[in-house]
Amino acid sequence: MDEKTTIYDIAKKLNITAATVSRALNDNPRISKKTRDLVKETAAKMNYKQNKLALALKRGKSYNVGVIVPHINRNFFSSVIRGVEEELYPQGYHVIISQTHEIESKEIETINTLLNAQVDGIIMSISKATIGVEHFSRVLKKNIPLVFFDRKKDIAGVSSVTVDDFKGSYLATKHLIEQGCKRICHFSGDQALDIYKNRFEGYKKALLDSNIEFNEEYVTEVMSDLEDGKKTIQKMMKLKNPPDALFSSSDFAALGAIQQLKADGIQIPEEFCVVGFSNEPFTKFMELSISSVDQSPKEMGRMAAKVFLEQVGDSQNVKIEKKVVLSPKLHIRKSSSRK
Amino acid sequence: MDEKTTIYDIAKKLNITAATVSRALNDNPRISKKTRDLVKETAAKMNYKQNKLALALKRGKSYNVGVIVPHINRNFFSSVIRGVEEELYPQGYHVIISQTHEIESKEIETINTLLNAQVDGIIMSISKATIGVEHFSRVLKKNIPLVFFDRKKDIAGVSSVTVDDFKGSYLATKHLIEQGCKRICHFSGDQALDIYKNRFEGYKKALLDSNIEFNEEYVTEVMSDLEDGKKTIQKMMKLKNPPDALFSSSDFAALGAIQQLKADGIQIPEEFCVVGFSNEPFTKFMELSISSVDQSPKEMGRMAAKVFLEQVGDSQNVKIEKKVVLSPKLHIRKSSSRK
Repeated sequence: MDEKTTIYDIAKKLNITAATVSRALNDNPRISKKTRDLVKETAAKMNYKQNKLALALKRGKSYNVGVIVPHINRNFFSSVIRGVEEELYPQGYHVIISQTHEIESKEIETINTLLNAQVDGIIMSISKATIGVEHFSRVLKKNIPLVFFDRKKDIAGVSSVTVDDFKGSYLATKHLIEQGCKRICHFSGDQALDIYKNRFEGYKKALLDSNIEFNEEYVTEVMSDLEDGKKTIQKMMKLKNPPDALFSSSDFAALGAIQQLKADGIQIPEEFCVVGFSNEPFTKFMELSISSVDQSPKEMGRMAAKVFLEQVGDSQNVKIEKKVVLSPKLHIRKSSSRK
Repeated sequence: MDEKTTIYDIAKKLNITAATVSRALNDNPRISKKTRDLVKETAAKMNYKQNKLALALKRGKSYNVGVIVPHINRNFFSSVIRGVEEELYPQGYHVIISQTHEIESKEIETINTLLNAQVDGIIMSISKATIGVEHFSRVLKKNIPLVFFDRKKDIAGVSSVTVDDFKGSYLATKHLIEQGCKRICHFSGDQALDIYKNRFEGYKKALLDSNIEFNEEYVTEVMSDLEDGKKTIQKMMKLKNPPDALFSSSDFAALGAIQQLKADGIQIPEEFCVVGFSNEPFTKFMELSISSVDQSPKEMGRMAAKVFLEQVGDSQNVKIEKKVVLSPKLHIRKSSSRK
């Protein structure tokens, strides 16, 4: 049970050959699934991995990959992480997660910690507050693959996986127009981040394409929470020409707006239509289910992991920049279905 | 900006004394908050932490703490993690998160990985599938504090922070009885885990105290998801004496049951009352809001971190067993309010 466990120990324990153990651990299809599972289980119990890791460390590989997200408690981020794990676990990697809570110094510290822990790669979505890029350069200098997903900065040598936010917003806004809405307001996010800028641009383009004049008063930057959604829609409804629809770049703010509108006696979707962004599970759970743009987070995680796998192990590949853009999907639900 | 950054470099950069830098980094109240923040920000940017970590590693401390949970995407677990972070960050610790997806071999691997990464402690909630305890012994042998929260095993030398599940269930069931419900069914969980066993016991005791006969047919083990909640309540409603209330040890299964009951034309709470467990945010979001038992997850995380802090650094303390039990709180909402 100590660090000296070898495949021979496992073979002895299970009364099979070391070659079978080795093949089973490498998922060789010539070995039955039952045996493969048994060998893996036994290896884990005998702490075989630890041994392999010690060996790997000597070779400069830890088989650990760090994933950094602003918050783990958003469905979008936890689903991306799930995708990363699904892709990396079968390759023998372990995934270590950290959250920054949108604080730049925390992001910098996390990267330092992961570099010290000798991770083989970092897959991350940057914090809203991040301005500096030195901490990213530090990763690249160590020849460790860095992959951004969703929220990114354009840095030479850094690959990214994003969703086409412009298209998602365009689809959502176009849909609201098709429902007969004419005064569509928009809850935007920090314009320093591409994702929110692109969502804003997609919204504007859809208005333009339908000959609806863009009205600055209808756009406000909100925090991604219920309270700010409530407050912001209240202000909007006090305008001379109050809006008749909302496209929110946050599902949480959209839900806050809906709660406020309903409290004020406004019928949804008859008098007012709402579409959110991210397809958080609660949007589907609600009795008045909320239309939302899905960003395929699991697929995004899998793609980010694949990009990492392409780069790791092949030092020639580390600096190859790959930009993957996924296509979003609009889920139309009760909050915007006038039929 | 490399690994040789010292407090003198930070002092030079900010044109203050090294003593001030040291005091600021140690949160000495004699230094103004503004200066402390500036010094910390600068230290992080100059990668001072990395240096401190290298030093710490030599002394056998990494200032990393591993948190292991079954799933990061449950509000209960992400809130506990938040509590752990809030308590540990000010002490200079970094929190590394891993999820097991309820798979024992994954839990074992994670512990091996964290031990290799030389974490200073492990705070965790065990997976449903975990039977063996060797991996926990390995942690103890290395004199690394191990703290269980919520889901635990009774192991000598391991502290734990839990909520009084028995009491939570008792309160929930008693409340249903007070609403006039007489045939209360229970969605339970894996009885090998204390938390689910205690919830079941609390339910039974409340029935007993109200002279309501316990009916085995009214108890089923469910998965914590919508689908299983739907299926299970469908079966229950086909009994000769169908139940008139549900106390579910899972909010997700409770929501599934509500959706199914409503689809079948049953009025909630008039004809059927429902109480869940965990106080997931969606229980409050719903128009038909769901009553639920709150487990004070943030407080649980803070307590677990405090227990860790008491044990770390004082080798005399590592083996002191501390059992903290928090009190649950029942939130009564529409799904069980007949008034």
